[in-house]
Amino acid sequence: MGEKKYQEKSDDRLRRQMEFALEIDKEKNVFRQTHLSGKGRNENDAEHAWHMAIMAYLLKEYANEPIDISRVMIMCLIHDIVEIDAGDTYAYDSAGLATQKEREDAAKERIFSLLPDDQKAELIALFDEFEENNTPEAKFAHSMDNLQPLMLNDSNDGGDWREHQVTREQVYGRQSRTREGSERLYELTDMVLRKHIEKGNIL
Amino acid sequence: MGEKKYQEKSDDRLRRQMEFALEIDKEKNVFRQTHLSGKGRNENDAEHAWHMAIMAYLLKEYANEPIDISRVMIMCLIHDIVEIDAGDTYAYDSAGLATQKEREDAAKERIFSLLPDDQKAELIALFDEFEENNTPEAKFAHSMDNLQPLMLNDSNDGGDWREHQVTREQVYGRQSRTREGSERLYELTDMVLRKHIEKGNIL
Repeated sequence: MGEKKYQEKSDDRLRRQMEFALEIDKEKNVFRQTHLSGKGRNENDAEHAWHMAIMAYLLKEYANEPIDISRVMIMCLIHDIVEIDAGDTYAYDSAGLATQKEREDAAKERIFSLLPDDQKAELIALFDEFEENNTPEAKFAHSMDNLQPLMLNDSNDGGDWREHQVTREQVYGRQSRTREGSERLYELTDMVLRKHIEKGNIL
Repeated sequence: MGEKKYQEKSDDRLRRQMEFALEIDKEKNVFRQTHLSGKGRNENDAEHAWHMAIMAYLLKEYANEPIDISRVMIMCLIHDIVEIDAGDTYAYDSAGLATQKEREDAAKERIFSLLPDDQKAELIALFDEFEENNTPEAKFAHSMDNLQPLMLNDSNDGGDWREHQVTREQVYGRQSRTREGSERLYELTDMVLRKHIEKGNIL
């Protein structure tokens, strides 16, 4: 194709990438149930993703299997983008959980479609890999998705569990997945949970 | 060493890693001059770093030189950690800029010292590499550090420039560094800046 046509195509590609980059800014307005340390305000999805990605990098030595840390980091960074449309579903909200997949599928299609086709396919593949949780990278990213709020909640004396009257079965139901990504970090998780069960913060 | 001693050493390593992970939660309370899109609230450093890391991944094809994207992403994620102690210094605040290095050096030593020695050295090396801005990775990370707030400010009709009565010389002084990381993204930057100069948003 001619130079002008090539330029237009290249401009369109960058325009789409920037449109997506601007759209995901909205993730900073999606608030979670977890509170920041120091009994701070609620955390938002972008902060949570940032924290998870750094923790993945720092704690990668504890992954059960060898992992490509670059894939884990980008997976952590994008795993909640669908919540821009679908909202955050609290881990122990069973009504919300029932419709979560449908809401998130529609959001996934809309938001990733802003990107050029190749990057849409690449990011959806990473997003789906995280959701399906079958690869070492996805499993380790899930360990971070559990460990990061557990750490904050522990620092706040289990306030988030108390507020939602979360039970031991609920917490272990979720946190036990940490084991699939990291036995060592599950040991730590289990220690923290036992402490909060003993203190009565988890029912 | 014996099994018990090994266990203690391993526990201490993980304890330090988790202490650092918890400490950096405070970065979510360091607010910047940039506002979120939709004329939203001020952005914080953790959100800014998350956004930069995703943009680096999406826009890596525009780097002037081949880059290791994993290094760029972790550099983006940690580049503002020192502001937990040192605070955010606005890009066009010359009084603040004069004492910035001293404040940030003390913060760097305190915060990264929470980590085990090997990781302290690794993260300080990455942090310094970003600051020195000599490698292709550091240069591309700086392009993101400029492009991300430029994008938000553009989406808000240049409100941050107007509020601070920023001049063309100041903006170009900073934004021209984008060129060292990416000629293509500097073209885009220049186009955006010309528009805001024409509109009178930049003096």
